[in-house]
Amino acid sequence: MDIIVLKPRASEKEKKHIIKRLESLGLEATVSKGTERTIIGVIGNTSKVNEEVENSIRAAAGVETVMRILKPYRLASREFKKTATTVKVGKQVIGGKKICVIAGPCSVENQSMMVEIAKEVKKAGASFLRGGAFKPRTSPYSFQGLGEEGLKYLALAREKSGLPIVTEIMDPRDIDVIEKYSDVIQIGARNMQNFRLLLVVGESKKPILLKRGLSATIKEWLMSAEYIMSRGNMNVILCERGIRTFETATRNTLDLSAVPVLKKLTHLPVVVDPSHGVGIMEHVSPMAKAAVAAGADGLVIEVHTHPEEALSDGEQSLRPDAFKQMMKELKPVAQAVGREI
Amino acid sequence: MDIIVLKPRASEKEKKHIIKRLESLGLEATVSKGTERTIIGVIGNTSKVNEEVENSIRAAAGVETVMRILKPYRLASREFKKTATTVKVGKQVIGGKKICVIAGPCSVENQSMMVEIAKEVKKAGASFLRGGAFKPRTSPYSFQGLGEEGLKYLALAREKSGLPIVTEIMDPRDIDVIEKYSDVIQIGARNMQNFRLLLVVGESKKPILLKRGLSATIKEWLMSAEYIMSRGNMNVILCERGIRTFETATRNTLDLSAVPVLKKLTHLPVVVDPSHGVGIMEHVSPMAKAAVAAGADGLVIEVHTHPEEALSDGEQSLRPDAFKQMMKELKPVAQAVGREI
Amino acid sequence: MDIIVLKPRASEKEKKHIIKRLESLGLEATVSKGTERTIIGVIGNTSKVNEEVENSIRAAAGVETVMRILKPYRLASREFKKTATTVKVGKQVIGGKKICVIAGPCSVENQSMMVEIAKEVKKAGASFLRGGAFKPRTSPYSFQGLGEEGLKYLALAREKSGLPIVTEIMDPRDIDVIEKYSDVIQIGARNMQNFRLLLVVGESKKPILLKRGLSATIKEWLMSAEYIMSRGNMNVILCERGIRTFETATRNTLDLSAVPVLKKLTHLPVVVDPSHGVGIMEHVSPMAKAAVAAGADGLVIEVHTHPEEALSDGEQSLRPDAFKQMMKELKPVAQAVGREI
Amino acid sequence: MDIIVLKPRASEKEKKHIIKRLESLGLEATVSKGTERTIIGVIGNTSKVNEEVENSIRAAAGVETVMRILKPYRLASREFKKTATTVKVGKQVIGGKKICVIAGPCSVENQSMMVEIAKEVKKAGASFLRGGAFKPRTSPYSFQGLGEEGLKYLALAREKSGLPIVTEIMDPRDIDVIEKYSDVIQIGARNMQNFRLLLVVGESKKPILLKRGLSATIKEWLMSAEYIMSRGNMNVILCERGIRTFETATRNTLDLSAVPVLKKLTHLPVVVDPSHGVGIMEHVSPMAKAAVAAGADGLVIEVHTHPEEALSDGEQSLRPDAFKQMMKELKPVAQAVGREI
Repeated sequence: MDIIVLKPRASEKEKKHIIKRLESLGLEATVSKGTERTIIGVIGNTSKVNEEVENSIRAAAGVETVMRILKPYRLASREFKKTATTVKVGKQVIGGKKICVIAGPCSVENQSMMVEIAKEVKKAGASFLRGGAFKPRTSPYSFQGLGEEGLKYLALAREKSGLPIVTEIMDPRDIDVIEKYSDVIQIGARNMQNFRLLLVVGESKKPILLKRGLSATIKEWLMSAEYIMSRGNMNVILCERGIRTFETATRNTLDLSAVPVLKKLTHLPVVVDPSHGVGIMEHVSPMAKAAVAAGADGLVIEVHTHPEEALSDGEQSLRPDAFKQMMKELKPVAQAVGREI
Repeated sequence: MDIIVLKPRASEKEKKHIIKRLESLGLEATVSKGTERTIIGVIGNTSKVNEEVENSIRAAAGVETVMRILKPYRLASREFKKTATTVKVGKQVIGGKKICVIAGPCSVENQSMMVEIAKEVKKAGASFLRGGAFKPRTSPYSFQGLGEEGLKYLALAREKSGLPIVTEIMDPRDIDVIEKYSDVIQIGARNMQNFRLLLVVGESKKPILLKRGLSATIKEWLMSAEYIMSRGNMNVILCERGIRTFETATRNTLDLSAVPVLKKLTHLPVVVDPSHGVGIMEHVSPMAKAAVAAGADGLVIEVHTHPEEALSDGEQSLRPDAFKQMMKELKPVAQAVGREI
Repeated sequence: MDIIVLKPRASEKEKKHIIKRLESLGLEATVSKGTERTIIGVIGNTSKVNEEVENSIRAAAGVETVMRILKPYRLASREFKKTATTVKVGKQVIGGKKICVIAGPCSVENQSMMVEIAKEVKKAGASFLRGGAFKPRTSPYSFQGLGEEGLKYLALAREKSGLPIVTEIMDPRDIDVIEKYSDVIQIGARNMQNFRLLLVVGESKKPILLKRGLSATIKEWLMSAEYIMSRGNMNVILCERGIRTFETATRNTLDLSAVPVLKKLTHLPVVVDPSHGVGIMEHVSPMAKAAVAAGADGLVIEVHTHPEEALSDGEQSLRPDAFKQMMKELKPVAQAVGREI
Repeated sequence: MDIIVLKPRASEKEKKHIIKRLESLGLEATVSKGTERTIIGVIGNTSKVNEEVENSIRAAAGVETVMRILKPYRLASREFKKTATTVKVGKQVIGGKKICVIAGPCSVENQSMMVEIAKEVKKAGASFLRGGAFKPRTSPYSFQGLGEEGLKYLALAREKSGLPIVTEIMDPRDIDVIEKYSDVIQIGARNMQNFRLLLVVGESKKPILLKRGLSATIKEWLMSAEYIMSRGNMNVILCERGIRTFETATRNTLDLSAVPVLKKLTHLPVVVDPSHGVGIMEHVSPMAKAAVAAGADGLVIEVHTHPEEALSDGEQSLRPDAFKQMMKELKPVAQAVGREI
């Protein structure tokens, strides 16, 4: 059902033109004449009213505004699938009772560091290892990642620790090499509306961790999930990582309300990345607890053995001992909301 | 300590002019000459470099930018007072081990409703009763509050329930009547930079609940606390209530990161209002839990016996039974972070 | 006309309850049943559906959302008054063919400076003199203005230059003294939703320059104009002065699109303040030209004889010669869009 | 030159550790000890202090904050190249005295429409034809563009009208086909930080029209230009197209201040797209005039012969007659600021 509001002085001819247009699409129009405005309610399979039709009706003479009531995403919606989706990766389940923690450095820097961190985070209770081999960096002069070599280090770290791997894809041309080494493929915030990349990972068999764009609305985010799902890959994990606002005390503004909002709108699991969200080491742990209390299914935490030597995002990485402490403190919070960690 | 960065082609004369200006203020200047820029470090009691001096130096010939390192607030800062401030109101303490819950309707509507809600929230474990007698409303045609009559109903509800009262002031001319009936005076989000009002409540003996402005940075918010404290009233409670962003799925974006950030910058207690922050009844409880997990000292929760008949903000009010349920669920979360409720 | 969208599984009883509620308000309900949602169109004098009723309907069982179609402001709307409002002050007219330029320092600092600047801006073609005697400052330790003494200097400068005066009110208690000396009363950005102050100036006979709040939507801004107009003062001038966004290269983001948008929604004159909007001296002139090209009825420009000694906002003030140059360059731009200056 | 501010209680050892780190990078450190903070000025070729080094210093013990003074972009900066860059395409020059107008539909829809629009906009004075064959759409169910077929229609329209073509690339894998047909390659707002795509077009011989990201700061935007230029392609045209803010009256908030700000920071030409910026047909013309008055080197305008049948963005497209009228009205504005059109 959609609603078309006519301008106060829309002519009878304009009104009829719109109704005819709707009928030509197989839709039914019900006209309500108020004292100041006339409204056309659109009945029928309004999923036919896609963006193009909507825009063209909005541009038609006599139309003041068009309001859409149905959500523009379908596969991602709770209406489509009532039960919560759980994403299984080896023995791990994202979206179940257990809060999954995905931990590791921002970038893969070298082999021994990767293995060391993997063992440390595994010991502290992490379920997944993260690390970027292809890195989106704002400067062309910054370290861009080790590429396939980095993926190999990740694979070795998986072998040594038993932890499945989450790593980022930046380019459709890298899909084969990323698929070869990863267990979960990450779409970074800056690529949330890289639609071609979404279609490519939509054809992959690997689960996708879809980060929210810096200025993406929750609706746009779910539309990006829909892109992936429309190609057949239903294993999408949403990751809140902070949005851009006027506040500069934190790197981004972590939008934890997105967790309960998403839980209502979609069946997909939701995880939170407080490291990028806040960007300051000492505030990661309180925000991780808050995320779990708000109902998140998992956490993404940057851990580095030597943050002051990290090739990226050192400022927001926890040292292994701080990570261990955080994991310990998370346990009672998880239990308090009926989860485990 | 402040830093003045000169333009690449600033002249010797311009440089000397600035140094002389600094020296005339009793400050010392240290010049560092880099390969591309010259920098003047300002040493001494730079609190003398107030906004006016800063702006005028910024406007001086040859200056590219001025960077301030010291915080512009003093009384509100952790440097000024290392220990956490606790605000005592009767038997209640805000900022102690116990999470204080301030509950009640948005507006005071009538006497029996006020008394009924007061008893209900008291029974469920609230520590304070809230309710507005003077209401800031975006429309001049909306209900503007009952005024002194509303304050009397609040006082009666306090008598019947034993709960101290939090109520909002909107106008310096109302200070006497507000002081007469209230236990804590609220400054609403839209008045966070109503500086005259801040000065007036700064001279009051009552504690002040200072809500964050819709687009206020944390620094500006602390400057508003400083206004109040500069007049002698040290009992300021900061209340995060959501900021304005591009996201429309929630009424505002509740910035929970503000809690740990404030805990580091200031000694003042911090409470969170998830009702206004999110604006949707069913998401209040998860965000209340998240606030407690993030380290908040208290919560402000809208409760109404008949939300669908409320004269304001019905959509975000909890019914007493939902409030009771929330309080029950908050208990283990508070314990998980070493607090009680 | 308003629209109430019911939840997919709203019961017949819930639907009837809402319809009864509407009928009790003297409104008519038309029900449209779509394949997935039922929609209730509200017909009749929906101005009765004020904020309270709207919120309570939104909180009623079975309701998914409420959409309002009519604008919540009436007196400020183009529907209410089709012809453009012109505000007359002495021989000056704001909203006519001539672009009015309101120029002067941020703060009144001393008598001779005020008279000097007044003469300079008059000579360069300004129509009004501005200057603050009561200054809203983020820090309690900053210069707060000279108060009545400053107003006297402004009056003297008016006498010497012939320019009418625009000055800011911050506190309802100052209305008498402000009215005594000013020709136009300014409501600053931070007080745009200081509703009590709006009501006070709504009862004044002086025209009001209403600055847009830092994070105010255009709709909220017009609601604040409506507050003033609802008390009988129809001479409201809207002033765009930049909104708060994530961008830090400029002090605020000057939203020039607000000019054509307002011209369509309201009959009130619209002026633009590029000095506060951009906050950087050298960018004031291009943005002033852009404002005129976009259709603004006037400009507010900070001018100071010695910006580097200004007690506030020196960084964004033009020197008289730069102001003169800007006025010269504005002339052909004004002519290009059928105006004069 | 960079500045490192130490924490109030940073130890001597921590300070020395940082100085040693700087010296190991071939940099010199000058220490200024204030009464409350110690500051380390970094002298030498601080371009060695890239993001990694900066982050790691920020994460080092004893460090409060790091401030960078030099701009992180080099090739794009005015310091690097003082004279304005002009981009030549056939007989057209972007960045010269003439304001270049790039006009056409959002999407290429069919052959006859493309040819018709091309002839119309040419006649009205446009310098370039735009049209998307690959379309980034928020919904996977929306029209995604005609692909190569659309490029062929564009080429035909160029042949018939003589206008060079601007068209968007979305995927590195499309570079060959896009290069084959286009004269200027567009990077859309959503791909501004698709870094791999930037590197690919950085190796192209075609000029690049780089749209600003929805929530990109001006600095980030210039860093994306730097990505392209770092690969050798110096012909980058910056296009302001509106940023995302809280305001919903317009589709985006057109940030015209970006024009003078960019003119100071960079030598690259700057154009403005008021169609996407405002998103409402009737406001395109005033904002186009404002853009020219602010100093823009060109405009991007959506023109469609039948907006109400457009397959995308119909609401913001001008009809040819409205476009012709706008071009006529732009002429005196361009002259008023010393340009022609």
